[in-house]
Amino acid sequence: MDAAEFRKRGKEMVDYVADYLEKIDKRQVFPDVEPGYLRPLIPDCAPQDPESFEDVFKDIEKIIMPGVTHWHSPYFFAYFPAASSFPALLADILCGGIGCVGFSWAASPACTELETVVLDWLGKMINLPEEFLAGKDGQGGGVIQGSASEATLVSLLAARTKTIRRVQSEKPEVTEAEIMGRLVAYASDQVSTSQKHRPGSMGSILSILINCNRENIWMHIDAAYAGSAFICPEFRHLLNGVEFADSFNFNPHKWLLVNFDCSAMWVKKRSDLIGAFKLEPLYLQHHHQESGLVTDYRHWQIPLGRRFRSLKLWFVLRMYGVTGLQEHIRKHVRLSHQFERLVLQDERFEICAEVILGLVCFRLKGSNELNKALLKTINDAKKIHLVPCHLREKFVLRFAICSRTVECAHVQFAWQHISQLATELLETWEPNQQQQQEQEQC
Amino acid sequence: MDAAEFRKRGKEMVDYVADYLEKIDKRQVFPDVEPGYLRPLIPDCAPQDPESFEDVFKDIEKIIMPGVTHWHSPYFFAYFPAASSFPALLADILCGGIGCVGFSWAASPACTELETVVLDWLGKMINLPEEFLAGKDGQGGGVIQGSASEATLVSLLAARTKTIRRVQSEKPEVTEAEIMGRLVAYASDQVSTSQKHRPGSMGSILSILINCNRENIWMHIDAAYAGSAFICPEFRHLLNGVEFADSFNFNPHKWLLVNFDCSAMWVKKRSDLIGAFKLEPLYLQHHHQESGLVTDYRHWQIPLGRRFRSLKLWFVLRMYGVTGLQEHIRKHVRLSHQFERLVLQDERFEICAEVILGLVCFRLKGSNELNKALLKTINDAKKIHLVPCHLREKFVLRFAICSRTVECAHVQFAWQHISQLATELLETWEPNQQQQQEQEQC
Repeated sequence: MDAAEFRKRGKEMVDYVADYLEKIDKRQVFPDVEPGYLRPLIPDCAPQDPESFEDVFKDIEKIIMPGVTHWHSPYFFAYFPAASSFPALLADILCGGIGCVGFSWAASPACTELETVVLDWLGKMINLPEEFLAGKDGQGGGVIQGSASEATLVSLLAARTKTIRRVQSEKPEVTEAEIMGRLVAYASDQVSTSQKHRPGSMGSILSILINCNRENIWMHIDAAYAGSAFICPEFRHLLNGVEFADSFNFNPHKWLLVNFDCSAMWVKKRSDLIGAFKLEPLYLQHHHQESGLVTDYRHWQIPLGRRFRSLKLWFVLRMYGVTGLQEHIRKHVRLSHQFERLVLQDERFEICAEVILGLVCFRLKGSNELNKALLKTINDAKKIHLVPCHLREKFVLRFAICSRTVECAHVQFAWQHISQLATELLETWEPNQQQQQEQEQC
Repeated sequence: MDAAEFRKRGKEMVDYVADYLEKIDKRQVFPDVEPGYLRPLIPDCAPQDPESFEDVFKDIEKIIMPGVTHWHSPYFFAYFPAASSFPALLADILCGGIGCVGFSWAASPACTELETVVLDWLGKMINLPEEFLAGKDGQGGGVIQGSASEATLVSLLAARTKTIRRVQSEKPEVTEAEIMGRLVAYASDQVSTSQKHRPGSMGSILSILINCNRENIWMHIDAAYAGSAFICPEFRHLLNGVEFADSFNFNPHKWLLVNFDCSAMWVKKRSDLIGAFKLEPLYLQHHHQESGLVTDYRHWQIPLGRRFRSLKLWFVLRMYGVTGLQEHIRKHVRLSHQFERLVLQDERFEICAEVILGLVCFRLKGSNELNKALLKTINDAKKIHLVPCHLREKFVLRFAICSRTVECAHVQFAWQHISQLATELLETWEPNQQQQQEQEQC
């Protein structure tokens, strides 16, 4: 394929994506396929000779789309939001076209410098303490990681390296293995993977933070989902105490309209990260690197290579503006409260955790089995899509406001649908309950 | 921005990328900017109100391009190739549009299943032993990681978990910390980061592999760059011995025309990976997962989230075909041998390592200082771009065939340019040598 054909096909693909997103509400949000559906639909081996774009293109609707869970459907209320916006998609086309690998300043100065500056922008938007910003000569700064898991891992490794070096300098007779065996990492039980169920619990974190700070314990805060909300002054108090942390991250690829992957991470002392990761083979050195002015992001992360991800953050921040992004967050929070009110108006249901941002945890008053059955009927109907969680011992349904295009009417529809299915379920539930429970035990 | 504007702007961006890549040889391969160039060019903060696409778009040439190192220029011979092709760019537009997060089968069945099947395709293309393939009911299988570093880290963690469990089952009295303190990882000194200087050294690896296999030591082979060449039968012998390894990876995003990131990794026993990473909060469970038919790729990697990266591999394999990709590899190898012959014809130069694939390590006969000076004049002239390496104690220039569009004429030009600069350098070198060395020591 030459550039001329790319022009043609690229435009067709842009139209395909625009069509897909414009009409996504017409597609069934969760697919009908069974495990193993795809393998019989395509050959066993790659073709020897080139196939045409048309051949590949027609397989998108034939093979791919029947197996896609449509995360951007306004009927998708599962997991957590996966950010997507047109400015981010445009930036990603550019990122692919430039195709640079930005592991060092010299490998593409724009890739490194835009990232540093745009993470300063983003840090200011959530009112991060200035120590976390790079500025012109700060000791801190931001970096784009692929995911919150990587940001947490990088923090853990930096903390480990720093602690081992401190103990070794105090007690040279102790071996590294002995120190390693005594290191402890504490994590909150109010989180799961990297998704907070109850951001309200952050209030009580302040005293922990102050203690960590006093005891020389590395403190990392992961606000993967909630962090985007901190661009609104009314939610910023949830981040109080961050001034005592060593590192902080949140995921614009969750709730700030920047397509995956884009996990923003800041540290107060960049030297702590670099100390854990520094890698200097000759072919990655360049004559500017000792100037103190340059950042070589390969020392800040697990992989060596990195894409030009700051472009999409830059496009989104500029083309939405702070006010546009605040509107997006506030709309989602408004919709979660709308859903909360609908639940509260129905005596059969209960709300299981305070609704603060875009997530509503709710359930039918009754057994876990009843709620499992309700979730199953909801997801089997495939008009909307939800996933559950456990809060203490309770099986709870999560209603997460996800899509960029979700509106009141979709939330209203979702609630009427859930309510109707609950009515049908409760009509038949009592007589079958015992039998169903037995079946589940088999 | 709505879908209608995205159609318009997306097409403009496709044209911009096509223009950029068509005329990339007219741009200076390495930028003129100094560290810190970008910050003064853009505001200190994100804008409060939205900016237009036009405003952002014009900044690409004004702010970004002056700081880009053009990895796809046919005059770029630095580091290693960063793969890029039009089919991969098209697939990435689609990937962004779908915007699913494929951490489990249910989160998007197509995303998981296409990856498994296409990695079987790719495994067959390099003639991997069948144990590494997923097939319909295999114990092995492939996964796309972000980078070779992640693949290696995942292997290390899997190996560690497996070994600790084995030792603990044999000696229950030994603590995990004690076992950890005695674990050893061996790595070849013929590699640096994840880039092989001398794939020829793989021949001697066979006996190590056989011993690892016998001694129950986890063996991971990283052929980040070289792996793509194994699709050509004449280079497949470099992978001999892989049948004794536990895991293997290479980077189609280096040399197989699939844009970053796409590091293909295979394991013989998927249960070894899953054992190290399994993560099962309720909201990530789905009712198919215990069927044995489904793959939940979050257990195979560091991050939770993952993009639909198999699309670009699928597009590239189909639209190039195996023969098209073989032609690409063979062209690059031919060009490296062309450069090698040019070097060998010039008595002032020497070749420093056997040229097997697309990399030529060469230098002026003479001191390291002389070669450092030569490299500096080459990179200061900015007509081509190279980076150095150390082979044993010698400072060596690396000439890597990188761009998809590089041809004989570019290699010829590069050599004439290097040769000319060497002539000019040698004319002035002797009298100044002492002085230059002293300057460097300051």
